[in-house]
Amino acid sequence: MIYFRSDYSQGAHPKVMEALMKTNMEHTDGYGLDAHCEHASQMIRELIGIEDCEVHMMVGGTPCNVTIIAASLKPYESVIAVRSGHAYFHETGGVEATGHRIVAMEGENGKLTPELIDRAWDEYEDEHTPLPRMVYISQPTEIGSIYNKSEMKALADKCKERDMLLYVDGARLGSALTCRENDLNLKELASFCDAFYIGGTKNGALFGEALVIKNKQMRDHFRFMMKRQCGLLAKGRLIGVQFEALLDGGMDSIYFSMAAHANQLASELREGLSKMNVRFYSESQTNQVFPILPVEVVRELENDFFFYEWAPEKEGMIPIRLVTAWGTEKADIREFLEKTRKIMKMQE
Amino acid sequence: MIYFRSDYSQGAHPKVMEALMKTNMEHTDGYGLDAHCEHASQMIRELIGIEDCEVHMMVGGTPCNVTIIAASLKPYESVIAVRSGHAYFHETGGVEATGHRIVAMEGENGKLTPELIDRAWDEYEDEHTPLPRMVYISQPTEIGSIYNKSEMKALADKCKERDMLLYVDGARLGSALTCRENDLNLKELASFCDAFYIGGTKNGALFGEALVIKNKQMRDHFRFMMKRQCGLLAKGRLIGVQFEALLDGGMDSIYFSMAAHANQLASELREGLSKMNVRFYSESQTNQVFPILPVEVVRELENDFFFYEWAPEKEGMIPIRLVTAWGTEKADIREFLEKTRKIMKMQE
Amino acid sequence: MIYFRSDYSQGAHPKVMEALMKTNMEHTDGYGLDAHCEHASQMIRELIGIEDCEVHMMVGGTPCNVTIIAASLKPYESVIAVRSGHAYFHETGGVEATGHRIVAMEGENGKLTPELIDRAWDEYEDEHTPLPRMVYISQPTEIGSIYNKSEMKALADKCKERDMLLYVDGARLGSALTCRENDLNLKELASFCDAFYIGGTKNGALFGEALVIKNKQMRDHFRFMMKRQCGLLAKGRLIGVQFEALLDGGMDSIYFSMAAHANQLASELREGLSKMNVRFYSESQTNQVFPILPVEVVRELENDFFFYEWAPEKEGMIPIRLVTAWGTEKADIREFLEKTRKIMKMQE
Amino acid sequence: MIYFRSDYSQGAHPKVMEALMKTNMEHTDGYGLDAHCEHASQMIRELIGIEDCEVHMMVGGTPCNVTIIAASLKPYESVIAVRSGHAYFHETGGVEATGHRIVAMEGENGKLTPELIDRAWDEYEDEHTPLPRMVYISQPTEIGSIYNKSEMKALADKCKERDMLLYVDGARLGSALTCRENDLNLKELASFCDAFYIGGTKNGALFGEALVIKNKQMRDHFRFMMKRQCGLLAKGRLIGVQFEALLDGGMDSIYFSMAAHANQLASELREGLSKMNVRFYSESQTNQVFPILPVEVVRELENDFFFYEWAPEKEGMIPIRLVTAWGTEKADIREFLEKTRKIMKMQE
Repeated sequence: MIYFRSDYSQGAHPKVMEALMKTNMEHTDGYGLDAHCEHASQMIRELIGIEDCEVHMMVGGTPCNVTIIAASLKPYESVIAVRSGHAYFHETGGVEATGHRIVAMEGENGKLTPELIDRAWDEYEDEHTPLPRMVYISQPTEIGSIYNKSEMKALADKCKERDMLLYVDGARLGSALTCRENDLNLKELASFCDAFYIGGTKNGALFGEALVIKNKQMRDHFRFMMKRQCGLLAKGRLIGVQFEALLDGGMDSIYFSMAAHANQLASELREGLSKMNVRFYSESQTNQVFPILPVEVVRELENDFFFYEWAPEKEGMIPIRLVTAWGTEKADIREFLEKTRKIMKMQE
Repeated sequence: MIYFRSDYSQGAHPKVMEALMKTNMEHTDGYGLDAHCEHASQMIRELIGIEDCEVHMMVGGTPCNVTIIAASLKPYESVIAVRSGHAYFHETGGVEATGHRIVAMEGENGKLTPELIDRAWDEYEDEHTPLPRMVYISQPTEIGSIYNKSEMKALADKCKERDMLLYVDGARLGSALTCRENDLNLKELASFCDAFYIGGTKNGALFGEALVIKNKQMRDHFRFMMKRQCGLLAKGRLIGVQFEALLDGGMDSIYFSMAAHANQLASELREGLSKMNVRFYSESQTNQVFPILPVEVVRELENDFFFYEWAPEKEGMIPIRLVTAWGTEKADIREFLEKTRKIMKMQE
Repeated sequence: MIYFRSDYSQGAHPKVMEALMKTNMEHTDGYGLDAHCEHASQMIRELIGIEDCEVHMMVGGTPCNVTIIAASLKPYESVIAVRSGHAYFHETGGVEATGHRIVAMEGENGKLTPELIDRAWDEYEDEHTPLPRMVYISQPTEIGSIYNKSEMKALADKCKERDMLLYVDGARLGSALTCRENDLNLKELASFCDAFYIGGTKNGALFGEALVIKNKQMRDHFRFMMKRQCGLLAKGRLIGVQFEALLDGGMDSIYFSMAAHANQLASELREGLSKMNVRFYSESQTNQVFPILPVEVVRELENDFFFYEWAPEKEGMIPIRLVTAWGTEKADIREFLEKTRKIMKMQE
Repeated sequence: MIYFRSDYSQGAHPKVMEALMKTNMEHTDGYGLDAHCEHASQMIRELIGIEDCEVHMMVGGTPCNVTIIAASLKPYESVIAVRSGHAYFHETGGVEATGHRIVAMEGENGKLTPELIDRAWDEYEDEHTPLPRMVYISQPTEIGSIYNKSEMKALADKCKERDMLLYVDGARLGSALTCRENDLNLKELASFCDAFYIGGTKNGALFGEALVIKNKQMRDHFRFMMKRQCGLLAKGRLIGVQFEALLDGGMDSIYFSMAAHANQLASELREGLSKMNVRFYSESQTNQVFPILPVEVVRELENDFFFYEWAPEKEGMIPIRLVTAWGTEKADIREFLEKTRKIMKMQE
């Protein structure tokens, strides 16, 4: 069985495991108050070129999203996001559990735009309506598309105009930054937003995300919020150690080479499928591919490959999601394409 | 200044005030545990023809909506509603404050349909998504439209199919039931849903709504929820006394005659405006009228009439909302129509 | 049946009803945005001698407590209160429903002290513990005792030292201020705290409390919080009208004479019972009396009087609560004392 | 520097690391839906002798506590715990963040008793008070004491009598079960309660706790609650793999031998300190030791040892906490005792 199920189906990149083994018997203080977390944070500050920010080592993406939103908003304030955004779509109402509404908008190719933000504001009147105060986006989006530099800037400008905070969910940030079509680099991304996280779980770590908070108000007592929202790990140093390994070498680190590798293989999948005249559910440019295939083809493929069906069958066709990762191999792609070609031929 | 601002701009119908005066010096137990509340509840049970239900006297509509939702759902469960629904649109996130998502759908003329419910379910997958468990509708809707008998039945059927609860916000229930275009009566409405409330605030009471809960699970410890959610009035009997007065005479009570009166005057407004070729923002059939008027006309009218602008100006036109109530007089309608005609003429 | 059940067993003082009748047919804007609310607020500003504050007309005491706490605290912050305090003891966890802990301390005669506040702080360490940020007291307390001027000052000083907010639940504020043993006046009370409310429900109103917020941060977007927490009344002017009537005449208004009347009758109850060698559950100085009586006496009294048993039976004795109010008459007291004397004699 | 700071200052037991390395390149499904989690769960079912239960792999202790409480209680229900209990004392109000009160009682040597539960119930009356529905205890307690078999049984009986759920926080469960003074075994513990967790973080895992839910109602949709409360790990299999390693060999596994080792060294610490006539802050019988030492001694010790001061200085004495773990060595104990003896001698 070949896995295109997710980018978190294996353990960690061998260099990450090596770092964990090497530091295993060290004694440190708990809860992220250790030299590894401090060192990893400093590496990140340098990478993004911003000294004046806080970096918090979080267990996962949902804790990042829920905690930063709960920490940043007053009770009557809301978040604007696209309906397919992870915080709305795939976190079982974790944000609402903290008392905040996500104003969910139909995105354009999975993306939020300044116009959509304005439209969300049309629902705001006065004390009878929640007050929009944060924009949540994922970079790349849940369906693999990216915000390029001018799109990011437009969102940042709109947020300033509306006195809103801009937060970027970077679960697959490496994938967005190493995407060939993208003209946005890490420093620019960091400069545009109030907070974002650098995702580890989906890019070669066992788990862990590095949440960067630039905005001073959002930082206030953040560790209290981490603990309250179940996001403070006892052996916090584990995340620090992993990010030291992931980011060792800066822009030449495995963090970026793993993401580039996954993107590359996804491109090959997309190209191979396009040649078979397959259409796609979304215009993804990163490590996710969403071909729409005949039901019978999908059923056959399921014998050898493990992946998600992404939406219900419609007129005999099903959109599936194929995810590549640091551990995906060229041979996996080749095999998938060959198998698909063969099945499709047989079905003709 | 003539008020078309809302149906709660005056005090109470004189008969309601009389009842409050007459019972004022009585001593009773607090929190709705008194003979007036019990009597009013029994009157309601008879009116709806359902003995096996609980009736709770609530202070207002928002407490009704928030409390019944918080009481009925498990933490991970959500409510489906239209985007213009009161619980979503005009309660400042009161429902989300209790930890639940409202899955907001674009309504059709302000209404939810079985198809929209199915579409909301498309967002549901498994433990990564909230589980839809309640349908919230207003009867009439926030923009004055009504669900007729077959529409109500279709929603009730869909709810049963999906194992969902059906809850009806009856802030203006009298208006829906006395609407000439409606073929739905109170007993039928009660039979279709799991819970609903009979609104007093917007139909001649000082304040107060009678929440009827048929579903046994939703009743469980409901008074605990009322207290917890700030909806239990110390002198609860005040609501009981008011409903005794409002519903005295059953279907011939002032509750229904006041609503019919308001509907009638709204019809006259609509007809008068239609004759001037005014278009409307929504197809209202009840006591709200939403004409779209030129900005200059609106500005002139504001000198003599008090009403809401319902949506932002667009190409020189503004939709306004005119609400009639038990205290609105025929002369008010006449004056509004005459004034409007005069202004529009001058503007030509 | 004579009622000593509560100070909210009757409707409103006749002057309050008169004001409601007189203004009943007026049209005003909703939600407290009307001239009566504004006028009543101004009357209060003058009474307390503080111009720079907000006054909000709230439906009841629990909504006051829950809303001001939810509005003032960050998610990880907590409130210190005595275990018998209303917000802890009798609001079904309404405060916790907004995500905040009440750090509950055993009070001294129902009161909080600077030492108890310090002891509550002993539980605070760092990001692993909630951060105490508000002190909640009732004046008078739930068991009828009062904070005199020096006690109030000591609490206020401790709050400043600890950077905490001081909030006073004034459900029975009239009773505290007209208590003969009290050397604290309204202006002083107002000067000591960050926010407090002037209770109407338990002192002659149908319902309604006037919440005074001095502290600027606590005022921020407070009306949003009122709506979100179900505490914004559609016909808000009803509370304004009632407070106009209650406070008409300032310190000579019925608000204070009603409270003084209730206190006076409670004193007579206490004195009469003391002469029969009855002991008391608490040292109340206001309109509540807590005699501890033999079970048999209580059972006999229950035939003619309606009151709460305040705590479980212990060794044949039960503490009961007798509450006097504006509507209580001298004859009620006389009858209670005579009856009690007679029963106790028979039991000897 | 020798660490007595906590039982989570190192990484994982070498056998745990070995298992993680060995399985690192495997592909599995996410979120705990993999063969390792299933296998570990089955190992636990066999160890506790209960087939009919759910086992969930949780990231940490706070997520366990918060999620099981939020999943099990209705909004108006509360938890009874001792004031020093972890869920009350050291989780920054995580439970209250889900809307539930912890009714906090002063424990006896850190323990809850049936009498204390009854006393907590004295605060319950009716719909005006939260309804106690769960008892939360830690085994061992936060201050190292244990509930023996008859104490556990008494709590379980009281819970049944009161219709309450019994939940056991087993962050250091191994330590309680291998304590020489304890007559309670794992099967008995499991039989007494409705849910409990087997702590990994504080006993040799990198992180992770295995939550066992026997009670059917508490299991309902639990994975939804895990996701909503931020407790569902993407690479959930990591916890399964760790528990496979920890529990390999059953009662002879490293899980129990590590705990016994830590207990043994703690005993030696206690005995050594007792011989120096040191008094203790609590009667701990497990892997935590709480000597009360002169300030000057503590200051000297801090040069060579890392530990918590457990409570503020009082009359020149400070209670400190010394924790032993699987990685603590006999030499560490020897050195601490020798150093202490030397310093104390010098100070005489």
